[in-house]
Parts: sequence; C-alpha cells; structure tokens
Amino acid sequence: MLSNNRSRRSGGRRRAQSEAANPLRETRYKQLRHPFQPQSIFSEDEVANIHQTALRVLEDLGIKVLLPEAREIFRTAGARVKDDMVFIGRDIVAAALKTAPAAIRLRAANPAREQIYETGAMLFMAGAGCPNATDLKRGRRAGDLQAFVETLKLAQTYDVIHMLGPCVEPQDVPIQFRHYEMMRAQLVHCDKPMFVYARGSAQVSESFEMIRKALSLSEGDFTDGVWATTVINSNSPRMLDIPMAQGLIDFARAGQMSIITPFCLAGAMAPITVAGALTLQHAEALTGIALAQLSRSGAPISYGGFSSNVDMKSGAPAFGTPEHVKMQIGAGQLARYIGLPWRSATGAASNTADMQAATETNMALWGAAMANATLTVHAAGWLEGGLSFGYEKFINDIEALQTMAELCTKPLGSDAEIGFDALAEVDPGGHFFATQHTMDRYQSAFYAPLVSDLTNFGAWSEAGAQTSTQRATEIWTKDLAQFQNPTHGASADERLAPFIETRKQQGGAYPQG
Amino acid sequence: MLSNNRSRRSGGRRRAQSEAANPLRETRYKQLRHPFQPQSIFSEDEVANIHQTALRVLEDLGIKVLLPEAREIFRTAGARVKDDMVFIGRDIVAAALKTAPAAIRLRAANPAREQIYETGAMLFMAGAGCPNATDLKRGRRAGDLQAFVETLKLAQTYDVIHMLGPCVEPQDVPIQFRHYEMMRAQLVHCDKPMFVYARGSAQVSESFEMIRKALSLSEGDFTDGVWATTVINSNSPRMLDIPMAQGLIDFARAGQMSIITPFCLAGAMAPITVAGALTLQHAEALTGIALAQLSRSGAPISYGGFSSNVDMKSGAPAFGTPEHVKMQIGAGQLARYIGLPWRSATGAASNTADMQAATETNMALWGAAMANATLTVHAAGWLEGGLSFGYEKFINDIEALQTMAELCTKPLGSDAEIGFDALAEVDPGGHFFATQHTMDRYQSAFYAPLVSDLTNFGAWSEAGAQTSTQRATEIWTKDLAQFQNPTHGASADERLAPFIETRKQQGGAYPQG
Repeated sequence: MLSNNRSRRSGGRRRAQSEAANPLRETRYKQLRHPFQPQSIFSEDEVANIHQTALRVLEDLGIKVLLPEAREIFRTAGARVKDDMVFIGRDIVAAALKTAPAAIRLRAANPAREQIYETGAMLFMAGAGCPNATDLKRGRRAGDLQAFVETLKLAQTYDVIHMLGPCVEPQDVPIQFRHYEMMRAQLVHCDKPMFVYARGSAQVSESFEMIRKALSLSEGDFTDGVWATTVINSNSPRMLDIPMAQGLIDFARAGQMSIITPFCLAGAMAPITVAGALTLQHAEALTGIALAQLSRSGAPISYGGFSSNVDMKSGAPAFGTPEHVKMQIGAGQLARYIGLPWRSATGAASNTADMQAATETNMALWGAAMANATLTVHAAGWLEGGLSFGYEKFINDIEALQTMAELCTKPLGSDAEIGFDALAEVDPGGHFFATQHTMDRYQSAFYAPLVSDLTNFGAWSEAGAQTSTQRATEIWTKDLAQFQNPTHGASADERLAPFIETRKQQGGAYPQG
Repeated sequence: MLSNNRSRRSGGRRRAQSEAANPLRETRYKQLRHPFQPQSIFSEDEVANIHQTALRVLEDLGIKVLLPEAREIFRTAGARVKDDMVFIGRDIVAAALKTAPAAIRLRAANPAREQIYETGAMLFMAGAGCPNATDLKRGRRAGDLQAFVETLKLAQTYDVIHMLGPCVEPQDVPIQFRHYEMMRAQLVHCDKPMFVYARGSAQVSESFEMIRKALSLSEGDFTDGVWATTVINSNSPRMLDIPMAQGLIDFARAGQMSIITPFCLAGAMAPITVAGALTLQHAEALTGIALAQLSRSGAPISYGGFSSNVDMKSGAPAFGTPEHVKMQIGAGQLARYIGLPWRSATGAASNTADMQAATETNMALWGAAMANATLTVHAAGWLEGGLSFGYEKFINDIEALQTMAELCTKPLGSDAEIGFDALAEVDPGGHFFATQHTMDRYQSAFYAPLVSDLTNFGAWSEAGAQTSTQRATEIWTKDLAQFQNPTHGASADERLAPFIETRKQQGGAYPQG
C-alpha cells in the first residue's frame, strides 16, 4: 500500500521539510477521564428500591462483625449490637454518606503520578492478589518475591496502570516479613500510588512508617492526601472479618484509603439475580463506609463492588459475562446514587492467554467504562479467576487499556482537521500519502500498537507465525531488562534498609486474624 | 464451591419440586435493540461542519462516476457532468435524504427471521468477502464452494447472526456460474435475510429470479420489503466504478437494499484525520444515496462506513484501533444527523485467532455499540483484515456477540428479584444455593457459555490444556455435523435445479465491469 514509488519520493521530500512541525506522538495516559456517558440497567425507582432494601438488610438482618472494637464503634454510634451481630440504622448510614469525601487526592512519590480519585476519573490497576505467576519462558509457578517484583516493574512501566497493586503473592517470603519486601519493592522500583495489605495493625502501621521513611514524609505530609490504599473485602454474605474490620479502622484513622469491595457471587454467596447480588453488595459496602466514617469522619473510602455470577456447571466465578457486565453497570448506578467514586474490576476465568481470556477481560473493561468506574482493578494480567498472573496476558491487556485510554481524547473537527484542501489535492482514485495534510500529521496521527502485528500473512508466517501471546514474551522481557528505578529509588532503599533489618531481627510482624 | 453436601442434598430435593416452575433458559437473539445510548466524539457544530464540507466536496470537487447510465441519471436530475466527473448539488442530496426510508423491512424465508432495519435495531453479519478460509483441521486454503457452504451453515446456526453474507469466496466455481451456487446455498440451507453480490445486471437479475423461484414469490411479493441486500463500496477517494453504480441502480429499481459502504483508510485513500476520513466517507455515501433515490424514489438504502486507519509501519488496514472506534462513533453521529440507519463493521488484522484478534474485534464491536450501528458486518470470523475467514475465530466471536445480545435484556429490579426473603434466609457466611429464590431461577439465571471454559487449572490441564481457539474446532465440527436445512430447503432446491441447469448450459452470466 505504501509502495507507490512516485508518492514515496515526493513524500520523502516533503517529509523532511515538515519534520520540525510534525512532532512524534505523545501518549497521555497518566490521568484519564471517562469518555463515555454512564449507562443504566435499572430505572431510578429500582435503584432507590435496591438502596432501601440494603438499608433494611442492615437494620433488620444485621451484619456479623467479628472484631470487638468495630462492634464497639458501631454500638457507640447507636447501632444495636447482639452478640457478634450489628444492626445498623439508616441514620448511621446517612451520616456516613455525608462525611465520605467525593474526591480524594492520591499522592505518589512522583507528583506527575498523582490522581484525583473521583467520579469521572478513570484509573486502572493491574491484576492483583494472584497466588501463582505464569509466563511462556518459565511456566506456571507459585508466586514468589521475584515474580512480585517483576510484575510490579511491569505495572510501573506502563502509564495506563495508575495505581500499584500486589500482582503476585511473594510466598517465599515468610509471612511476618512479607510486608517489608512488598513495601520496599514499591518504594524503590515505583513512583505511583501504593498498595498496602490490611493484614493487621502491626503490618499496616509498619507499612505506613516505611512510606514516611522512604519518602522523608512528616506525619503532616503523610496525612495530606492518600499515600496508601488497601482493598477491604467483606465475607459475603453479611460478614466482616477481623483483619478487614481492623484495616478499615486503621486506614481511616491514618487518613489512608480503603476500597470497600464485597465479592458477591450471584448464585453462590449472593442471591442469584443481578438485583439481589447488588443489594447484598450495597449493604456490605455501606457497612464498610459507615465503619470508616465512624472511625474518623471524612476518612477517604471508595465504594466498590466485584459482583459477578458463578458458572452453573462448575461453580467457578465467571468474568466478562453478561451478568458481570450488568452488575458493573448497576453498581455504577448505585455509586452515583450515593454520590461516591467507586471501583469495579475486569477479570478472566480462562486458564491461558487466549481469545477467551481477551474477550472476558475486554467485556468487563467495557462494562467498567459503561459504569464509569473510577478504578478498574485486575485490568491487566489476571487469569484463572485470579489464581494466576500471566505476563503475556498483561502485555496483551495493556493494548486494550491503551486503546481505551486513547478514546479519552476526542478528535478535532475543525476545518483544518477536516482538510478540504487535502481532499481537493487528491484526484479520484488517488491517495493521500503525499498531501501536506498527511505530512503534517503522519508521525502522530495514530496509536502505535504495542503487541498487535499488522503485517500480512506471508510476512507473519516467515517471522514464525507467532500469536500475540507468544510475541508478548519478548516485550515483557525487554521491559524488565530495560527497567530503571525512579530517581528516588536508591535513597528510599538506603533509608529503608536499617529499619527493615532491625524489624526482622526483632521477629517481624505477624498478620492479625 | 458447589461441593457442600448438605446444601446439595437439600438443593436436590427443592430442585425436583421447583423444576416445573423453573424453565430452561431461552435465548432471544433473533431481533435485538441497542441497549446503550449512542455516544459522541464530535460536537453538533462539528458534525454539521463535516456534513457541509461533504456537500462542498460533491458540488465543487465532484465524484468520478464510471458508468454512463449513472452519469445520465445525475445529469437528468440537474447535476453538472463534465467527462466522467459528476458535480452533485446539495439540493439533489437534500431531496434524496427526504425520500430514503428510515425503516426497511428485511424479509426472510422464515418470517421469524425478518428484521426491521432502522435506527435502534442491532443486527450482525458474519465476516464477509474472504478469499481464504482457515481452520485448525485443514489449515489455510483458498476459498472454495465447500468453505462457502460450511461458513454459511455456521452463520445460519447462530441466531445472533441476523443477515447472511458471503463469508468465503467460492473460487472453485467459475465466475459466470458462481452466483448460482451462492444463491442456491443461501436458499437451500438458510432462512435468514439474503445477500446478493452486485457484479453486474445479469447476475443480479438472475439472483433475484432465483429468490422468487425458490420461495415461490410473485413480483409483488418480491418488492414487498427487501429480500436481497448488497454492499456497495465506492473506490475512495471520490470514485464510483461500473459494477457498483450498476448495482445501486439495479437494486433500487428492484426495491432491494444497497448498503453503501465507502472504505476510507485514513492516511492512505482518505485524509489522515478522523474528521477528514469521515468527510470523504460521508461525501461518497451521499453520492450512493442520491443515485439510488434518483433511480427509484424511496429505494431502500443503508448509510454506511468502514473507515479506519492504516498501520503507519506496514500500510496495512487496522481494525479495533482507537482511530477505528472514533470513526465508528463519528459515523454514527453522521447517520443520526441525516436520520438514516447505518452499517458499521468490526474486524481483525491479526493473522490467527489469538488475543490480538479478540481484542481488535471486541473493541470494534463495542465501537459499533457506542455508535448504535444498525448493522455490524464482519462481526464473526474475520481475520487478516478480511483475507481469511477463521472457523475457530467465528466461534469465539459468537461468544462476544451473544454476550452483547444478552446485554439487550435489562435485569428486573422488582422486590421479587431483589429477594429480601432470600437474604433473610441465609446466615452470615452461608450460601444461597438452596434458597427458594435460587431454586426458582437456577436454570435460567445465567448465560451459558459457548466456548468459554470455566473449569480450574487442574481440570483444564488434564483435559488437554486447550485454548479457546482449539476448543472451537469441536464446536464448529459438531455444528456442521448436526446441521439441518430449514423446512423449505428441499423444495427450494427442487425449484432451482432446472433453472440453474438451463442457465449453465446457456453459458451462465459473466460479471460486468
């Protein structure tokens, strides 16, 4: 198609002339706003009904709260507490929704990576919490520190990943030392908003301390915005366990962000209907929001949901299904109803980086877009319903995320862009390669694919007939080989080393629960 | 997850009781309406500006029309004609847009397969026009009649494919006889709205005659709605060739539908900008609409566009890119601006059924949804930018289309669906398997995947660790083995046989051009 000699020659001349006025394409994926209007699956009355039913669940059926301190907080606020059941009145919920902030500043070692976490913003986090890692070079293996660090570096590499997450669980690090390595890796290799697991007060407070030390933050600096985010999962149905309740309290008091995420599987741990599963999700999320606000008024929290259905054949969680997408859109309506930013998730049940994996993830990515999710977790790399992080899957998912990010920039419709003169310049049946309109823009007009191969079948076959999954191996390998720590990395490492050494000698900190 | 014995036993009992009240899931994919609001990338002023510039292109720059009869039609209507250039005044376009119908009834051998082709409807056609076919059993080969018939049967098998198309070119059938076999296959094996190639008046009129014969339609029956649809591609930029112009005239006069589809590749045969490529697309589409309406006022036509960008490295057409999606959404705005139903397309440049292929196709599928395209062509099976039809790709794409089709049904938000009683019935930390709410719905609550495998890694590995592409082979093989002709097939075959035999003896009909 570009082989017409005459045009290429004349194009070459013009190309040289216009090079200066034709800058290379810049990508702007660091801060994104949703390009699409949020959609609805429920009527306004139905949304109100779901909300009211969730309030009734909290008041009449109650929530089992395993942490005595959390029950005490609820009791002090006027909730009825009977044994480990807490019955939360709608006045408590209403008050919490008034003090929960609608916009949260996420701080980062690099100010250019900061985010405003609010309705309309579009943030992505890579696949998180995977006990296994898999790639085509080394196969599938239990997650270890090497995989944790490698996947973190990959998440750092791509601007379209906005928040760090624990992609792979470093199971070769003893559990009482694990948070040291997870924080060290984030603070040394990365400069994006960080993740801290809520595995008990001891680990959480040490993690916060590491952030302050590594980045030389005062207490005041640390509470000026959010430096650490955690995910709080309720145990559906209607239960909040000890580390999760403790995490909500600790993060709230420290001014750090909890993303409250019931994992409601319709047909298993939640009612089988979209409306029923969302009602349970909503009730549990409101419980977390209330506990955080009662712990500290104005505490930064995110509404969240990760509701999907189970496969009725295997009982396994399903992702990217019609029911999942509907629950995403419905959850978005509920988040708008209570006026809070919220997190959704993509995901894939597929066991390998194939068309199923892509379609599951892409469908849920668009579901999150239709729902205007503030944060979409598991957006790259998730396989096996989260049991495995796939390096090649990650690279292929980044292509989809970058495509979505590109859609955030609307094209121009000015006379210059329309280019009547270019249309006049080219005869019927001709081509536009050599027009000034093309010359001025050819370096920046189009998104440059990451892993997609657009060569023809012959050239592709000669190059080894590789799938995009196979090609991705070279990309992540190169990303890791070329990886460089951010400028603050070395000093952070130096500041952390003695702290970690001392703490390890003292026996570390065990999880709570 | 479903292994709790107590629950399964009690579930079993209840299951038997509620079986009668719990019908199997019915899919309703035959007629679909868009579930999402159409989106915009251009302001209203910009859309008007693109439309006005397209009118200026037609008036001032003109269109090269190679068919003398078509030039004569334009001249008679008042257009300025100079040599083979036609300059079309905006009054001609305005008159054409007034008479072009906004809703078109697509007839089918089976009335249950009929469609109303109008804004808001959501129709899919499988990948069309591929010179090659490929599958994992037989590899990649030149398209032949066997592949044409097989892929047609696959398109007939799935309700989510609404219109037939020429998936694979049957190159082993001599060109003068090819339309006989293409029509015979559609009329004998299928009962959905049919496709006829515009390869000259002789083949077109014989194809129409075959439809009338096979289905015993009178002339009046045949023109009562649309029995045959064709795709008209302009030769961008600004040229309409002989068979395409002839097709527009012939289909219009016969009351059959032309889908007018400029194929504008930004950066090659069209301006490099989204706005510029769409301006050219719009001008060419308006030319086709005008010619059809001048040939017969009220002729059924569809606005259309298949604009995308070229890969700046290889010059190859790209699909599912950000630019492609933007052009889809912009084209949707232009279709709404002129008040006509329209066709878009998905597609994949990938050479094999991998994650790239899925992501390209899924992105463009959602682009078509965001643009509320009436018809989305190439929605399943397209590979290599249309140079190959992939059987396994087709099956995997059907999964995505069925997911989209499921989204057309909104979930209920009634009290019964929310299921407060079910929520009350299950203790904290329990499960919903055995609730009446679940029992009443478990057979129909969730979409049943076609090719997605949700088993765990161990079971999947033991079963051969197949990708969804590999699993798809068994599905299409079974589909073809179990395929049955519709009830009218045998009689259609009998009615057509003598006609085709006679025509073949007379030498057939060669394409025009």
